[in-house]
This record gives sequence, structure tokens and C-alpha cells, in this order.
Amino acid sequence: MSSGQRKAAREWSKEFEVEGHLIDSMILSRIFDRIMDLGGDFEVLEFRIGKRKTDYSYAKLLVKARSEEHLKVLTKELHQLGAVPTEYEEPTLKPAPQDMVAPDGFYVTTNHPTFIYLKGRWVEVEGIEMDKVIVVSPDKERAICKKLRDLKKGNLVVVGERGVKVKPPERPREGVGVFEFMGSKTSSEKPAAAIIRSIARDIHAIKKQQGKVVVVAGPAVVHTGAAPHLAKIIAMGYVDALLTGNALAVHDIEYALYGTSLGVRVDDGQPVPGGNRNHLSAINEVYKAGSIKRMVKLGILKKGIMYECVKRGIPFVLAGSIRDDGPLPEVITDVVKAQDEYRKHLRSADLVLMLGTMLHSIAVGNMLPSTVKVVCVDINPAVVIKLMDRGTAQAVGVVSDIGAFLPLLAAELERLRGS
Amino acid sequence: MSSGQRKAAREWSKEFEVEGHLIDSMILSRIFDRIMDLGGDFEVLEFRIGKRKTDYSYAKLLVKARSEEHLKVLTKELHQLGAVPTEYEEPTLKPAPQDMVAPDGFYVTTNHPTFIYLKGRWVEVEGIEMDKVIVVSPDKERAICKKLRDLKKGNLVVVGERGVKVKPPERPREGVGVFEFMGSKTSSEKPAAAIIRSIARDIHAIKKQQGKVVVVAGPAVVHTGAAPHLAKIIAMGYVDALLTGNALAVHDIEYALYGTSLGVRVDDGQPVPGGNRNHLSAINEVYKAGSIKRMVKLGILKKGIMYECVKRGIPFVLAGSIRDDGPLPEVITDVVKAQDEYRKHLRSADLVLMLGTMLHSIAVGNMLPSTVKVVCVDINPAVVIKLMDRGTAQAVGVVSDIGAFLPLLAAELERLRGS
Amino acid sequence: MSSGQRKAAREWSKEFEVEGHLIDSMILSRIFDRIMDLGGDFEVLEFRIGKRKTDYSYAKLLVKARSEEHLKVLTKELHQLGAVPTEYEEPTLKPAPQDMVAPDGFYVTTNHPTFIYLKGRWVEVEGIEMDKVIVVSPDKERAICKKLRDLKKGNLVVVGERGVKVKPPERPREGVGVFEFMGSKTSSEKPAAAIIRSIARDIHAIKKQQGKVVVVAGPAVVHTGAAPHLAKIIAMGYVDALLTGNALAVHDIEYALYGTSLGVRVDDGQPVPGGNRNHLSAINEVYKAGSIKRMVKLGILKKGIMYECVKRGIPFVLAGSIRDDGPLPEVITDVVKAQDEYRKHLRSADLVLMLGTMLHSIAVGNMLPSTVKVVCVDINPAVVIKLMDRGTAQAVGVVSDIGAFLPLLAAELERLRGS
Amino acid sequence: MSSGQRKAAREWSKEFEVEGHLIDSMILSRIFDRIMDLGGDFEVLEFRIGKRKTDYSYAKLLVKARSEEHLKVLTKELHQLGAVPTEYEEPTLKPAPQDMVAPDGFYVTTNHPTFIYLKGRWVEVEGIEMDKVIVVSPDKERAICKKLRDLKKGNLVVVGERGVKVKPPERPREGVGVFEFMGSKTSSEKPAAAIIRSIARDIHAIKKQQGKVVVVAGPAVVHTGAAPHLAKIIAMGYVDALLTGNALAVHDIEYALYGTSLGVRVDDGQPVPGGNRNHLSAINEVYKAGSIKRMVKLGILKKGIMYECVKRGIPFVLAGSIRDDGPLPEVITDVVKAQDEYRKHLRSADLVLMLGTMLHSIAVGNMLPSTVKVVCVDINPAVVIKLMDRGTAQAVGVVSDIGAFLPLLAAELERLRGS
Repeated sequence: MSSGQRKAAREWSKEFEVEGHLIDSMILSRIFDRIMDLGGDFEVLEFRIGKRKTDYSYAKLLVKARSEEHLKVLTKELHQLGAVPTEYEEPTLKPAPQDMVAPDGFYVTTNHPTFIYLKGRWVEVEGIEMDKVIVVSPDKERAICKKLRDLKKGNLVVVGERGVKVKPPERPREGVGVFEFMGSKTSSEKPAAAIIRSIARDIHAIKKQQGKVVVVAGPAVVHTGAAPHLAKIIAMGYVDALLTGNALAVHDIEYALYGTSLGVRVDDGQPVPGGNRNHLSAINEVYKAGSIKRMVKLGILKKGIMYECVKRGIPFVLAGSIRDDGPLPEVITDVVKAQDEYRKHLRSADLVLMLGTMLHSIAVGNMLPSTVKVVCVDINPAVVIKLMDRGTAQAVGVVSDIGAFLPLLAAELERLRGS
Repeated sequence: MSSGQRKAAREWSKEFEVEGHLIDSMILSRIFDRIMDLGGDFEVLEFRIGKRKTDYSYAKLLVKARSEEHLKVLTKELHQLGAVPTEYEEPTLKPAPQDMVAPDGFYVTTNHPTFIYLKGRWVEVEGIEMDKVIVVSPDKERAICKKLRDLKKGNLVVVGERGVKVKPPERPREGVGVFEFMGSKTSSEKPAAAIIRSIARDIHAIKKQQGKVVVVAGPAVVHTGAAPHLAKIIAMGYVDALLTGNALAVHDIEYALYGTSLGVRVDDGQPVPGGNRNHLSAINEVYKAGSIKRMVKLGILKKGIMYECVKRGIPFVLAGSIRDDGPLPEVITDVVKAQDEYRKHLRSADLVLMLGTMLHSIAVGNMLPSTVKVVCVDINPAVVIKLMDRGTAQAVGVVSDIGAFLPLLAAELERLRGS
Repeated sequence: MSSGQRKAAREWSKEFEVEGHLIDSMILSRIFDRIMDLGGDFEVLEFRIGKRKTDYSYAKLLVKARSEEHLKVLTKELHQLGAVPTEYEEPTLKPAPQDMVAPDGFYVTTNHPTFIYLKGRWVEVEGIEMDKVIVVSPDKERAICKKLRDLKKGNLVVVGERGVKVKPPERPREGVGVFEFMGSKTSSEKPAAAIIRSIARDIHAIKKQQGKVVVVAGPAVVHTGAAPHLAKIIAMGYVDALLTGNALAVHDIEYALYGTSLGVRVDDGQPVPGGNRNHLSAINEVYKAGSIKRMVKLGILKKGIMYECVKRGIPFVLAGSIRDDGPLPEVITDVVKAQDEYRKHLRSADLVLMLGTMLHSIAVGNMLPSTVKVVCVDINPAVVIKLMDRGTAQAVGVVSDIGAFLPLLAAELERLRGS
Repeated sequence: MSSGQRKAAREWSKEFEVEGHLIDSMILSRIFDRIMDLGGDFEVLEFRIGKRKTDYSYAKLLVKARSEEHLKVLTKELHQLGAVPTEYEEPTLKPAPQDMVAPDGFYVTTNHPTFIYLKGRWVEVEGIEMDKVIVVSPDKERAICKKLRDLKKGNLVVVGERGVKVKPPERPREGVGVFEFMGSKTSSEKPAAAIIRSIARDIHAIKKQQGKVVVVAGPAVVHTGAAPHLAKIIAMGYVDALLTGNALAVHDIEYALYGTSLGVRVDDGQPVPGGNRNHLSAINEVYKAGSIKRMVKLGILKKGIMYECVKRGIPFVLAGSIRDDGPLPEVITDVVKAQDEYRKHLRSADLVLMLGTMLHSIAVGNMLPSTVKVVCVDINPAVVIKLMDRGTAQAVGVVSDIGAFLPLLAAELERLRGS
């Protein structure tokens, strides 16, 4: 190809670079795929492959488009995959025209670590979360991830992809945790005991290193008889925060007070006469005491998940939902406020364990950077699939019965703690 | 049995009566079953079977227990099934000890029509809903179903089952609607076209008689490409209210503005470059306009589900949830308020059509008397099973792909309207 | 009603009688329902209700039809539900016109106990199974259930419902086994530990009374790591026959020889390099030895499900299927022969435990009288629903992960055996 | 790195090469991943990246192991991914020690195109299928894929990976068919209409180029009311072979003769009195006629799936299964023979459409080279996941209701044919 020819072609072309463990983390594959999917063309101008697995690789591509518009489209997409134009430019910043409204063309975040090119250097965006906007401080020293509804008129919002770089997660290279074990697939006919052991090892290792484990759970934990086992895991000190809703708390307290969940006696599985009223009775008892915390203090609530949280000072957040009975006094009925509370406790989490709840799992998935480990346990494979489709691609799904899974996990954690 | 013997036995026994289509609606079966399950015994003292299918039957039973406590248990259970002691008594009423707190032993409602024996007559409870309490007016003229949190200190609350009678629903006896067709089972390998035709006939017949049809829907309606079909059903006048959440509205508006849902172009299924930002962009447009209604007024929103609702003045309620992006201005973020709004529109509904949403379906199920027809369509059979397990036993479940179901339903309704 | 009026009405009417625990087993409900569903009418001529729960009830009905044809239809249906015309008649018998072909209008069996009115008495049909025909011996002393393909030219086949009486199963009245516990519903969010305990109690009680327990299992038992636990249950003497296919045997032997299932090491869940060849290698080893039994004899196969069966002389049947690899020498590749072998081992079974296999479970369901207890464990609720839809209505479904379920069941059985 | 150092390292190392669209088909990623997963190390000795997307890439790696054993393990694994040692060697061939038995260490095939290095050139293996062995002809001119059970004593069987090269499939680079559209993921909340249109386009395009379309179907096609639509697709000439079992044929004939499927009238969904006997009656009619083909010839069978096959001379294979009623005369009750028949019709298939049957879909998946397009439609997502887990990784899964899917597909194909 003569240099003259290339010149002509360059009219709708642009050089990009990308760096990292390009091949074994599949980043380059995705970049090439995407260009082709979109009808673009490319040439590899330079490619330095890490000779050893600990080395980084570097690639420079000439991406060719059919039109200026097409090139813009390609740029947008490559951006998502971590490729940036070789000539770094400062981002376009536009002021928010009014409170809660971003300027047209505003940049929408992914959940990957993100950097903004400001005053000649790449500044990492603080508090990254998917589907938010980026606001740059007036002195251009900081870049902050913000919800649309938190925008103030005049905030400097990043518009377009220019000057923004994302870093998709790389595959971890060592270790034998469940993440290496499972890849990012759901467990379909995999050996249950082996999976549980590997999750236990991950949780144990994180806690040993003062890491943070957050549990997201739904009422199925109680219905399936697993409440004492989750309570025990909390009592052993493996949980740093519990994010859930009204239903888990109500049924946990129902079980603690009356031995039933949804009116079924959990210990022997018999429906209890008049048991249908127990969950409302439990709510009434909480109302009477004023709060769950006071119930514990008054000695009325003596066991269970909520009890262990209160006793050990483990923070819990009960988010309201449209299907709540009651709801209990500690429930945050405004969902926007509940989101903020959830967010607070997810900050700096190392591993999130999701147990039998589609609603809260997807909500939490939306709030997590892609660097946080996520294990999602549900008897319904659709929950895990949805979680990944919604962008929490790092999640590991375990299709299992919570009622059989949690006793085995608790026993394994106990064994690890003793050893 | 000599009368002497009976006397001895009566120490822990009690006479009950029950009336209705006892056999073909399985009420009597359930009563006998329940007594036996609980280790009780019984004798049929009197049984008048309706000679013809339009006649009522009447049964009087002597129920025998092992102890006074056991008899109380049996009484509680029989009560749920519509059997009342032969000697009618006024209910026990106790004042609520404080706001939001019921007296101990308070009666918990079912979702069946319920009557209170007050001043010598059976008074029907107003606004019956499951898992609530019953408050009797000071003049004992009215009985009202109330949420725990709406109780005021001093309200006269019914305690125990005495003086309360419930009327479990009877099987409808005529007709060829989907309810007769399906029984109360889920469609498992049933002919899809036939089911859809029978649902359409039910909806059409109800609207012809000025009945009220409420649609409860989740965002899967938009993702699966069915939004134009639901919009059309609304445009044809078949829907009286739409109960949903933030996500359906966001994706419907995303689709109306950009042709995508979750970034996938709905019409040809291709992912759109940069499409991941469309749903946030849609939210930003609503914020800019101020509300969905203003977007329609300003001519920015020109089609779709929300557009048809606004244009035709069909009320819609957007309930907030913990997983919301935005949320949109019209979303009621406080779930307790959202429940009240839902409730308002469910009042006097004749048929509720639930489309692809577990969360809102269970919420709505909790608010409905058992006399309202419910059709629940979901690709996941667990949604329907859960709905019924939670007490909405009258629901008919259709396990189908919303994206294939709604076009066929819309076409069938159009055909019926034309004919 | 004067006798003159009745006469007129009788033109298209007929008297039926039915006996049993009519109400608490819901038989009468179903009869009334069915008449109404089909547009018929009825009058209750006589009704003697069992005064106590151990008494039988008796009902005599006058069933009215719109036409002779309609009456035939009603008769057919009532027959299925156990109602017989009050005037007993001998059945119509017609010779089979050729081998494998039944005369037109032949009677099709249900899986309920069935009786034929022969020479003035009700003779029970031998070997009842659903969807078969009934052949009467030339001396009219016996009635035998036969497959169409076993019919010989000239066999006397029952035609129509006349002279046939079926006895739908009655609800068991005592006990605390899983059947009473669960009703005939699937476990949806039920306490897993309690369900498992109650299944264990049932199995243990049956074996204590020299009853017969048959296990029907699929390869998921091995994939999920539960093979050692099923092997242990067999070793403890709880299983009288194992009905399965090629895949379970192949993977069980793969696991015994190499520690893997489908190439994944079961004990720690790691994929084994080259593991994909292990299952074919296992097949090759069996071919080399000549059979599974010889492998055990030669000391090559030393543990696992198949090993325990061979060692303890527990019969196993491996039925061929279109998806088999190999198949192994002991596999019966002709499915008709395999059915006959299955049938042989199901004779006089008291409880059948189905583990993770839709194919074999439905096959076995078809072969069982409705009086045999069936427990079906699968992570997919659709399997249980299908089993019941296909007529095995007595089945109890447990939606759970086999890999977590079987270890708990084995432990519970061990505990019961020790106690 | 000095050449001295390298020499030492080479003791447990080996050079491999691999060629193809290494990056955009993710082959290189998988190779690097696998080496690391297994605790090996590597160095990239040479890497020529295709400058343009139509160019091939080439990589030469030095793979390092901890021991000779470890190196063997790595070699085995790299082999599966298409990497071969740079020094080509002839394969080890060992004679089969007896009929049906392969020599120890025999090579197990994948479903990818496979080549054997014989007499200095790469010879493609004929009839490749997964989990089989490779037999080389005595003159070393041909290599043939064989089932274990077809091995004859003395056959030259390939042992180990030496001299074997597999070619994992590359991503197709052009086009807008469903395969490009969906990637290899299941449709979860994807627009149904768009998916159906793209499948129709693929089928239409294949038939236009004289390609071969095979349909694999289960009885759910009939139960869900879709039989007339599949019949129509056959009548339009879009199907070259139908692979199914006894149940589809029985229920299709039941529907053609009596309008019911499993006793439910398909056209209006009403259960038909006495309908439970219809499927056995249908079997009896076939027995009477002698075969399905004769039923058509005699004018007894006049419509439906089987009728269209017979009328148009489209071959169909009915494979027996343990759950069959009857089975029909044309059913091949020996599953090994049935597999051979299936295989015959799958030869040179371009697209296989699997409709509502886990059993036959997995069986067929096992018989297909990875180069054949597979679309699997089922309401149960587990079917698709299992199909892929079992090695049919190229399959595209559509989670939908067959009864709603097939009418839309038939309509779309009709539209395409007309246009």
C-alpha cells in the first residue's frame, strides 16, 4: 500500500491504541469483532505482544469508516472496549442546563474503571457506577460519577467519548476461587459441594485480609428454612452488611417469634393452624416495640438474621417495595433514599453474595463497579442470566436451592474458621 | 349414639354450619380435609344437598377436638373455609392500643368476601383485601378493612374469629371464558392460540358490559418488542388503568424516541452503536420536558404505551423500586404512597391482566379480592406459581413469551371489535 | 316430582351410583363439576354421608343429557371418575380383529384400580396401567391389562365403559409422611430440610415393613456430585431396584475410575485436562471387561452406584435412548424390551423416587398404578408439572438441586437406621 | 534470553503453532487462558497478525511445563484448541485389540473439522462427530471417524494427540442471519418478532442455494397447537428431513383424525369428553392400516405434519424412547439403529431447527459437526444451556413458546417465498 493511497483512506479513519493483557482477557477479540459487526475495516499498525504472561501487550490500529458519521459510531464503540485515539484530547465539557438535566450528548458511564484526560494526565473517575454521568470539578482536578437527578445547573458534564478511557476488567491470573473455577457461566449440573467449598474459601480469604463481604438476600432464605444458617454466618463474622427488603425481615422475625414462615412451621414443614396471621402478628409486634432494634433491646427478639445483625452491630438496609406488608418501621419506603443507603454500604465491597432475590440483586448489580466479585445463588437460572444481561457480567451464578445451599455453606465456613 | 354419650363428647366439640355450592366448589372437601389434617374428628349432623345444580347445599357438623386449645385451633381453620359456629355471636372488639398497633389476637383478613355479625345481622366488610385488620365503626353499622399502619389509637378492631364469616369463591357455572377453560392451572403445553382467543373474549365481554380492565405490566413488554401491541390495545379502549413501574415507562419512551430498548433496535433486533446510552437519554428528555404528560403535550413523545395512556386519559401509576434508573418525574418513589395509588385504580376492577412482571403482579395480587379475575402471562412458570402460593388462588397462568403473545392478543381483540 | 314426569325425563337420563370417601377425597366434586362442564344436568336422588370419617358415603344421581349421544359422552366421563350405572351390566367384549389391533371403540384404561363386571361379580383387572386395553379370559374369570402391541387376534377386548368400574385413589387418612405434608403440590419455597426429613421417614418406614422402593435416576445425579450419596443409600439397603439409562451408568463408572463426570473432577470441581475423553474411556473399559458385572468381578470397578448394585445384587435396568454414547453392553437398546424390564421391577413397588430425569420419570409414571407413592426431585419445576399432567397425579414434586438434596437425604436415612 | 538459558528451559517445553483468524475468533485467547489455568507458562516466539481482517494470523509459542507429565497435559489441551507442535509427526496408530474395543489412550474426537498427518500431509477426517475414535485406513490414505461399537479387531486407531490437528470454527464474517444477530447466547428478553424474521431469512437463503434444512421436533409442537404451522412449512418445501420420535407422530395423527392432542381439542382448547382415549385410538388406526404411509395412501390420514412428509416424500425418522405408547410401526425401537438413521439424514445438513425437545436435540447435537448451524427453540432455557454445555456450542437458543413461535415463523417464510 503506497503512502498516497493511505492518505486518501485516512479521511475517514483514525488511529487507536489499547494496552493491557489484550489477548488472554479477550479485549482485542472484542475490539476486532465490534469493528466488523459495524461494517468498519481496520489495519493493525503495530502490535507488541507481551512475551510472558505477566507482560502487557500494546496494539495500534488504523480504523476505517465509510463516512464521518460512521467513524463517530466506531469511536463510540471502541471507547467502550478500552481503545482510545492515539492523540489524547481533553474531553468536551458542557454545563448542565438545569438541575437534574444533562446537556445533549452527555457521556454515559459503564461500570468499568474510567479515566478522564484533564490537564495532560488521566484522572480516574470517582465512585464509578453504570449508567451515570461524569462531572468535572471547575479546577479540572477531579472527575466524579453522578446520577442525573443529582446534577446541579452549571455542573460541568462530560459530553461524548473524547478524553475518556475505560478499562474493562482483566481475567484474574492466579488462585482457585470460585471465579476462576466457574468462569462467568452459571452452574448447570456442576458438582454442588465443590462449588460451595470454593465460595467458602473466597469468603474466608477475603475476611482474613480485612476485606468486605456484603450479603443481598430475599425472603426465600427464610421460607426455605435457611434463616438459622445465614444467622450463623453473620454470627461468625463473615458479613459486613445486609441489604434486603421488608419481606426478609418480616419473615425472619415471624420465624424467630413463632417458628413459622408464611404460616408454615419451618422446622418440620407442617402448616400451622392460623399460621397465616403470624407474619402480620410479627409486624404488629415490631410496631409495638417501635423498631427491630428496640425489639432486640427489650429481649423480645432473641434469634435469627435480624437479631444477629443488631447484636453484632452489622448494618442492614431494608428497602421498601410495592409488595410490602406493613412495612416495618426501619424500612426506607422512598426507593431513591433506599438506593443511596444501599450504595453507602456497597462502597469498597470486595465480594457480594446474592441470595434468592431478583429485585435486590439487579438493583445492587447496577451499583457495583465491575471489579467487585459477585456470587448470585438462585433456583431460577433466569435471575443469573438477567443479572449478566443487565451489565453485571462479572457475576458467577449458582443455580441451587437456597434451603440446601446455605446449610452447606455455613458448615464449610465453620470448618475453615476452625482450621 | 345415645344423647348421654354425645354430651360427654361435646365438652370439646362445637357445631358448625356452612352453606353454598358445597360440593362442586370443593368447599366441603376442604373442610373435612382440614379437620383430619389437624387431628380432629367430626360427625355430619345434617346435610341437605342441593338437588339441582342451581340449589345451595347446607351442612351442619359436630367438630370434635382433643382439648379446648385444639378446638380453638380447629375453629380458626374452619373459619377460613367459611364454616361458622351455629350459634352466631358478636365479634370481640378491642381498641387499638396506639396508632399503627392492633390489639393482641387481632383478626387477619383473607381476600374473600367477609361478613361481621353486628347487631343481629351479617354486615359485609368494606374494601376487603388480604392480610389486613377489620375495624368496626363505633355505631356498629359498618366494618372496614384497614392496613395496620392506618390504624388509629382507639379504633375498634375485631379480635379472634368469633362473629366473622368468610365466603370462599365458588366456581363460575357458565360460560366459556379462559377461567372455565383453564381451571386454575397454568398452561403447560396447552394450545396457545386457543388460550389467547379465550382471554380476548373475556376482555371484550367485560368491556362491552362497561366493566373495568386493569393492566399490570413490566419492562419485558418493551424488550420483547410488544410495546406497539399493548399501545394498540390501549388505543382500542380495552384498558382502564395501567399499573407499572419506572422501567416500562423509560424503555417505552426510549423505544418511541430512538427505536431501541436496552440499546437493542426492536424492529430488527440489531444492537445499536452507542445504544446503551439511549435509556438514560430518554430519562434526560423527560427531565427536560418536566414530565411524561408534558412531553406528549409538547409533541416530543408521539407513540407508544405511555403516549396512548396520556392521549386517551387512561390513568397510569408508576411505582418506584430499588432498581430504578432516574427515576422519571411521575414515578411515586415512596412505596407506601404507590400502593395507595395502585389500590385506588384496582377498586371495582373486573379483570386484571398481568404481563411479565413478578414484582408488580404479586403486589397487585395482595390488593385484590378473590372475586376479581386475574390472568398472569409470563415466560417463567415460577411467577404464576408464586402468585397463587401468595393467596391469589383465582389467577389463571399463561406460560408464554410476551413478545409472541401480545401481537396475537391485539389481533384477536381487533377482530372482536370489528365483528 | 311425579313418576310420570320422571319417565319423560328418563329418555335421555340414567342413574349412577358412586361410593367411597366421596367428599374428603373430592370425588363427588369432580363428578358434579364434570357434568356441568359438559352441559349436562343432574339431580341427587340419594345421598348417605358417612357420619364419621371412617365411614363410606354413597350417592345416587340422576344424570340428564340433551341427547342419546350426549348421554354417552357423560357416561364415558362419569366412568373415569368412578361412577357406574346403577344397573350393573356385563361389558361388551369384542375379539381383536388382528394381532396388535383392538376392535373399534375399545376401552382405554386409567391408572386407577379397575373392576370388570363378569358373571355377576366385580373382578379386578390385573396389572393395571394407564393407556392400555383390557382383555377378558375366555372363561370370564380374569381380566388382564394389555398393551395394544401384545394383543393377539381373537383376544376378547372390553369395548366401551359398560361393566367397567374405576376406583380413583382416596386421600390417605393418617400419618405424617411427605404425601400428607405436601399435598400433591410442588415444593415452591418450602423448607428443604423438613421435606427431606419427611421423605426419609417414608422410605425408612416402607423398608421396615418389607416394602419395595424403586429409584429412577438420571445422570445429573453424577454430574452434581451426588453419586457417592446414592451409592450409600443403596449400600444401606434402602433401594430394591434402579431404573435408569446408559448415561448414569457411564458417568458413574467414569467417576469411579477417573474421579470426573463429563470431564469435570467432581471432588473439587476443576475441569481435568483431557477430561473430555474420560467418559468414552470408561465405555471402552466396560467393553473390554465385557459388562459392568464383570468389571466388578474383575476388581476394576470398586465403588459407585453401579458397583453397589452389583455387589448387593440389586437389579438395575439400563434403558437405551437416542442420545446414548456407546451404549454399554448391559443397555437394552430396544425400547420396547426396556419398557418390559422396567415394568417387571415396578411391580408391587410401594414408593418410587425419581431423581433428575424427565425422560425416565415420565416413562415410569406411565407404568405405575395411581396407588404407588411417587416422589420426583428435579431442579426444574416443569418436570414435576409434566409428570402430573401426564396422569401421574399422585406424584409429590420437590424442586431442588440433586447435588444438595441427596447428601442430606443419605444423612437422614443413616440417622434413622441408627436410631 | 540467551540460547543457553533457553536450552535448559526446553527440557520441559515444546514449540506450538496455530494459524487462522486468531484474534477475532478468540482462539488465541483461549489458548493463553488454558495454559495459565493449567499452571503452565509460555512465551510468544513469533506473531504475525493479519494486517487486514481477511488475512490469517500466525503464532508460534514456546510452552513451558513443570514436568514431562505436565507437558503432556498441556499438549492435550492445546491440541483441542487447534495448536499443533511445530514439528509435525505422524500419529501413533494401534490396532483395536478386539471388536468394539479401542486401544488404551485412544484419541477422542471433538466436533470440529479434524486433520491427521499421514504420509507428509494433513488428511481431513471423514464424517467427524464428537466423542468418537479415528481409524486410519491401512494404506494411510484416509482417516475415518468411527463409533466405538463399530470398531473391528485390528482397525488402526489413532492414539494420543500427536499428528492430529483440529480447527475450531471461526466466527462468520458477513451477513445478517440470526447467528450474527444473536451471537451464541440465548434470547432473554429479546424482540421475538425480529428473531423470528432473522431465522426465516436464514432458512429461506439456505433453501434458495439448494441447502439442506433438517427439523428436529417434539410433541410440544402438537400440544401447543403449532402442528398446522409446521405442516405448512413442510408443504412450502422448507424442510428436507424430520427427525422426531413416536410421540409427535402419535399426537399429530390424533390431531388430524380427532382434532385433539392429549385429549384437548386444539382449535378451541376445550377438553373433549373421552378425549383421553384418542391418542391410543390413533395408534390403533395406524396399526390397522399397517403404517403411517399406508394410512396416507388409503386416504385415512389427510392432513398434518406426518401427512405432508409422506405426501411430499420428505424422509422422517421416528426414534423409539422408553416412554413411548404403542409405539407406531414406523418407529425404530432399537436406539442404536435409530441413531444411524438420524445420522444419515443429518449428513450435509446446513441448518438444523430444533423445536421443543430436549431428548432429540441433545442426541442430534452429538451427531453434528460444529460447522452446522443450529437453532434451538424451547420455552425452557435449560434445554439450550444443556445443549451448549454438551458441546453444541454453535447453537443459537430462542426461549419462546412453540405455539406462538411457529405461526409467526410460517407466516414470515410465506412472505419471503412470495416476495
